[in-house]
Amino acid sequence: MIIGIDVGNTNMTGALASDDGKRIATLRRKSDRAGGAKAGVKLISEIIAALQKRAAAKGGSVRRVGVGFGGPVDFERGVALLSHQNPGWANTPLRDQLQKRFDIPVALDNDANAGTLGEWRFGAGRGVNDLLYVNIGTGIGGGVIANGALVRGAQNLAGEIGHIIVRRDGPLCTCGKHGCLEGCASGSAIGRRGSEALGRKVNGKEVFVLAAKGNTTAQGVLDGVIEDLAQGLGVGIGLLNPALIIIGGGLSEAPEKLFLQPLRRAVPRYCLAEAAPRLRIEPAQLRYDAGVMGAVALAMS
Amino acid sequence: MIIGIDVGNTNMTGALASDDGKRIATLRRKSDRAGGAKAGVKLISEIIAALQKRAAAKGGSVRRVGVGFGGPVDFERGVALLSHQNPGWANTPLRDQLQKRFDIPVALDNDANAGTLGEWRFGAGRGVNDLLYVNIGTGIGGGVIANGALVRGAQNLAGEIGHIIVRRDGPLCTCGKHGCLEGCASGSAIGRRGSEALGRKVNGKEVFVLAAKGNTTAQGVLDGVIEDLAQGLGVGIGLLNPALIIIGGGLSEAPEKLFLQPLRRAVPRYCLAEAAPRLRIEPAQLRYDAGVMGAVALAMS
Repeated sequence: MIIGIDVGNTNMTGALASDDGKRIATLRRKSDRAGGAKAGVKLISEIIAALQKRAAAKGGSVRRVGVGFGGPVDFERGVALLSHQNPGWANTPLRDQLQKRFDIPVALDNDANAGTLGEWRFGAGRGVNDLLYVNIGTGIGGGVIANGALVRGAQNLAGEIGHIIVRRDGPLCTCGKHGCLEGCASGSAIGRRGSEALGRKVNGKEVFVLAAKGNTTAQGVLDGVIEDLAQGLGVGIGLLNPALIIIGGGLSEAPEKLFLQPLRRAVPRYCLAEAAPRLRIEPAQLRYDAGVMGAVALAMS
Repeated sequence: MIIGIDVGNTNMTGALASDDGKRIATLRRKSDRAGGAKAGVKLISEIIAALQKRAAAKGGSVRRVGVGFGGPVDFERGVALLSHQNPGWANTPLRDQLQKRFDIPVALDNDANAGTLGEWRFGAGRGVNDLLYVNIGTGIGGGVIANGALVRGAQNLAGEIGHIIVRRDGPLCTCGKHGCLEGCASGSAIGRRGSEALGRKVNGKEVFVLAAKGNTTAQGVLDGVIEDLAQGLGVGIGLLNPALIIIGGGLSEAPEKLFLQPLRRAVPRYCLAEAAPRLRIEPAQLRYDAGVMGAVALAMS
């Protein structure tokens, strides 16, 4: 059996699964956000120990653990470099700490890579050898499967489609650059663009609600967002020629008519004509389970 | 022993090499540009037959042939889809024709993929598992090595960095879109931008010569080209986090001070800060041998 742990900003979730990834049990606990790595590792350890007991009760044992972390990870060394949301996680050798404690092989990666592996093994990407996963929520993250394997790159930074530049004159991004895809087309960016256009504070979801009601200003905002997003995806298509682009995160919940349909229409304007006809753009399937099932997939990989 | 054949626009070049890619003999013949596939296959066959004789004279035999073709290729089916420069090549089942004739396994791919494999096996990319190859000449082509393997994608269109869009308001590209990297930063684009800025017809090389002499208008053109190119490379870095970007083609011959040095300075403005410090940007090493040694690498892969 295997265990997947999703180290999220608000929750820690663990799943016990069979060797081929069928879920047997799930355990969710609130994160101690102020407690940093010390409290975090303690909580992760309690979840692993509890799931080990469940495995033993079923006559099995846990052979591998996968941990998906909400921040950049040095995959080679198994170190959590930073949590963007919670303090006290910098340079935590999480893999080795857990391996030493439980004497089980542990794989640690960032949640974008884990999410990509999860959709590929269990979700919309099953059986596809070349795909791009794009998670659009507060920010934009992603991952790349090429030749039937996750692409991590030289420093485990591959798949960072949120920080490719689509408009040099675009808004300032948290990463310090102007015109990143994330700053133009994330959920937060839609809220900001909507607020500017409408002259009052709205969030991303409200922009969609207004557009659905026929508000042409809100629709205009979405039109602009779709173009930026299509350019970003077009770049991924040009470099990787995926068979499938999977859209995950909050925006995959937006009404298909307002989001995925116009996106599918826009993308061919931003990629080689030959690549467009056979490309599929589909919503992620794992939704709330993306984190933990990604961690299970990570343990399997 | 193995044979690599480069089907270029003006020349056909064949190389006989040892199983580990050491070149034993080279044979170059002028292409019959008007003769299409029929004359082309005949010439390729003559080159293979001649190199087979050389192999036999050395007591060896040819076990595999790689063919790099100057146009899009359906790799799975082994079909040359089109030659951009020479008529009469559409939908030529070149792989099967040669396999039938010589009863030797043949691998057929486009010259960008072959060039990528060549630089990776024999040139600037030796020993690097994640790299991006960008060939900047009349046009811009490229290829991707990820996880120590060539990325072909779903339709063998991966690595087409020339047709990613960097400026939506940019010039019209031959592919029908505005603002492709090729239309902004290829050798031809530099000539066109230079001609517009200087008010007289110049080619790309002349823009470099003028800039080297201190012409500030020409230098301004190069500054703009470098920014476009840096944005294009930044996109590749964001998606793939390569350890190395190899610049091949005519522009890799430009004075380093006018081209590679400013490019290296510009790229960090277009990618994640974490990815920049350990990234190398280096000129290709195979130069005139890129095509044929790429075909040899293709035969080996």
